[in-house]
Amino acid sequence: MSAPLGPTRVVVVGADAAGMSAAHQALRTARRTGRELAVTVLDRGAHTSYSACGIPYWMAGEVGSGDDLVARTAEEHRAAGIDLRLGVEVVAADLRGRTLTTGTGEVVGFDELVVATGAPAVVPDWARRDDGSLHGRVGVVKTLDDGAAWLDRFAAAGDDAHVVVVGGGYIGVEVAETALRRGLGVTVITRGRGMSMLEDELSDRVNAALVAAGAELVLGSEVTGLDLDGDTVTGVHWDGGSREADLVVVAIGILPATGFLDGADLPMAANGALRPDPHGRVAEHVWAAGDCCEVRRRLDDQWVYRPLGTYATKHGRALGDSLAGGALAFDGMVDTAITRFSVGEVHLEIARTGLSRADAEAAGHDPVALLTEGTTASGYMPEAEPIAIWVMADRTTRRLLGVQVVGGHGAGKRIDTAAAVLWAGGTVDDLAWMDLSYAPPFATAWEVLQVAARRVAERL
Amino acid sequence: MSAPLGPTRVVVVGADAAGMSAAHQALRTARRTGRELAVTVLDRGAHTSYSACGIPYWMAGEVGSGDDLVARTAEEHRAAGIDLRLGVEVVAADLRGRTLTTGTGEVVGFDELVVATGAPAVVPDWARRDDGSLHGRVGVVKTLDDGAAWLDRFAAAGDDAHVVVVGGGYIGVEVAETALRRGLGVTVITRGRGMSMLEDELSDRVNAALVAAGAELVLGSEVTGLDLDGDTVTGVHWDGGSREADLVVVAIGILPATGFLDGADLPMAANGALRPDPHGRVAEHVWAAGDCCEVRRRLDDQWVYRPLGTYATKHGRALGDSLAGGALAFDGMVDTAITRFSVGEVHLEIARTGLSRADAEAAGHDPVALLTEGTTASGYMPEAEPIAIWVMADRTTRRLLGVQVVGGHGAGKRIDTAAAVLWAGGTVDDLAWMDLSYAPPFATAWEVLQVAARRVAERL
Repeated sequence: MSAPLGPTRVVVVGADAAGMSAAHQALRTARRTGRELAVTVLDRGAHTSYSACGIPYWMAGEVGSGDDLVARTAEEHRAAGIDLRLGVEVVAADLRGRTLTTGTGEVVGFDELVVATGAPAVVPDWARRDDGSLHGRVGVVKTLDDGAAWLDRFAAAGDDAHVVVVGGGYIGVEVAETALRRGLGVTVITRGRGMSMLEDELSDRVNAALVAAGAELVLGSEVTGLDLDGDTVTGVHWDGGSREADLVVVAIGILPATGFLDGADLPMAANGALRPDPHGRVAEHVWAAGDCCEVRRRLDDQWVYRPLGTYATKHGRALGDSLAGGALAFDGMVDTAITRFSVGEVHLEIARTGLSRADAEAAGHDPVALLTEGTTASGYMPEAEPIAIWVMADRTTRRLLGVQVVGGHGAGKRIDTAAAVLWAGGTVDDLAWMDLSYAPPFATAWEVLQVAARRVAERL
Repeated sequence: MSAPLGPTRVVVVGADAAGMSAAHQALRTARRTGRELAVTVLDRGAHTSYSACGIPYWMAGEVGSGDDLVARTAEEHRAAGIDLRLGVEVVAADLRGRTLTTGTGEVVGFDELVVATGAPAVVPDWARRDDGSLHGRVGVVKTLDDGAAWLDRFAAAGDDAHVVVVGGGYIGVEVAETALRRGLGVTVITRGRGMSMLEDELSDRVNAALVAAGAELVLGSEVTGLDLDGDTVTGVHWDGGSREADLVVVAIGILPATGFLDGADLPMAANGALRPDPHGRVAEHVWAAGDCCEVRRRLDDQWVYRPLGTYATKHGRALGDSLAGGALAFDGMVDTAITRFSVGEVHLEIARTGLSRADAEAAGHDPVALLTEGTTASGYMPEAEPIAIWVMADRTTRRLLGVQVVGGHGAGKRIDTAAAVLWAGGTVDDLAWMDLSYAPPFATAWEVLQVAARRVAERL
């Protein structure tokens, strides 16, 4: 390859967490390494760098304005020297010829391509009109426009509205919280047992909290269709039942937006997700990060699809740095995640890290797991709230394999300590005996996470 | 040594966290290993297994009763097969002859001695009457009896009382919180700059919070004497000033209760603290754990005096197990601690782990440290509160050396994640890039602890 004349043309497709982290870091690193970069970012939408994770809380009325969710505006990106072009959809790529084609037929050349296209929500056929658009009062929760539409729908539907949430994952639970906090009726319908990223002992507790907060749960059921009044939903049918509904939230997952790469010879999962290395490299001159990618789980060296904002930002940053001659790496993850369900008196913090029992068995481990109940603070303190911690370790190597937590205020972020042990490849004994902080408002003298680990250690 | 006739006589001196953890664990392990143990516990006081750390919260009125602080009663210990003798003070030991002498002249023989005598509060001469007892309305905060006496004193002194707290460490700050929560006037007098276990940038924030909550601070000053009305305190003098006082709390430290071992050839620090190995062994047939001991800091292999309840329980448990033929070990610590200062609108969580800058320099490191400010949750969430995080790493090895945190709700327990990295000997890059949990109510997309680490990593 001959040296390019002029600056290296970096074209980033997608202007959210991964893409903009990559763009900014590339420019920062280039100043250090002396590379000359011309960074262009294309996005089919109208917004940049917003927190999709914050949308349920905006919908709940806790966040003042959608603008609050925008970390950096288009103007701020441009001021940093990025040629940001919004409303530009990339529909095809010629990786050999190093060109992209946009929806309007424009051809954009690149030296380095960064794919950060994210993943739109999956919308089942029953939710769509013939023209592909969604029925009235049916929506997803993915973009700022979705959030704004939901605020309008809530206002129009009134205080007696009943919301059916289809999907029992993180988004499903968060939107159920949103609707319950608004005082609306809520039904959650899910194919599985709800919060399937947790072991049964813990997802049962989340389900109980949903019910305690007034939600109706329909588990193990698939939605089969809607009742419509003209074009607007009035009810939902599932295999085994039906009910009236004023609003329907579809939260059954998202799919990588990599269709424009069809036919390209790139490492890709069955769902279309790319598999970049720790530096974000997918192929020569092609990079990727964020929700359009799988991430490598260090514990069992498996590629898994975990479209989380924190991976997008970290991998994007490593990508931008590496592209500009740096060496930063996003060296995989340990499958950590957190959410909450908090309505009135019901407050549950929900977190996981590491392998599930099924993951561990698939990886050839001999897992020993135990659920431990305790309190988030010394039992005699007013701060003490119940917490349940599931810990799993390998019988032979004693390595910590996974930890899951469901509990009151202060429970959730305890998962980070377990994640740090997993990151280091530590044992359940490390977790049980290491030096964690204790004072009565914060913990028991043996921190409950360590009691949970110790009880497993005693059974190996 | 010939095999003993009958069970091994284990005598534990001290019936609080370390001693009772050791006693119970020894009996548990003995059932597994088939050892025959006769466990006797002697304590000069009237209470067992109480949370000294909880006493300030009991004094504040947050804990209903002193009994709530008792983890296990004397009856429960006896029911577990422990011969518990309260009100028995050990005044001398003959380690060669394997006997103890009590205050009443009784001689108690042992095969294995466990020293878990703790550490009474240091009381300066100015606080004492000629007979050694404390002046009226002057007290320490160490035992359940102390706590009960304070509740009486608070009740007698009335709502307008002014409390002078001598000492600006953990206990000093906690007692200041107690008195302020009770609506009393508070002055804190300390020799140093207050919270000297923190770097200046952070202890300054604690001082500012104390002042914001209405306390008067007298830094860098030593108390020189009291004004007395008859036998009762009415004022406090220090080098540079004086003020009226209705109550005086002495919280300037504690000293290991190892006087009865004077003359024994045991590894002992200048303050009289013992130095047991990870199994609690001090010498043949002599074991120790808890506040009468120093603990080994793994990071620089130094013995330091850190009389904390969590070390007492962990080391006691390892001791009991090892004494009965097990292999559990308390393999040192990384100098983690936490407290809070919470009065009205002022809520600060305060935590540290690892080395101070001075420690690091003494250990030959080339430390790079930086303070980072951020929020405990995504900035747009109502849960977001300010947090300041100090991170220090070694320039050459990039190893994480220390982390300190001062911030709002949820700030404090973040220290555990840093402690886990220190425990594993990880780098500042590990902390910056590892997989910690993110959701808007709990963190920013780059967890603030990781941002703080990343900023240091960028400067190495």
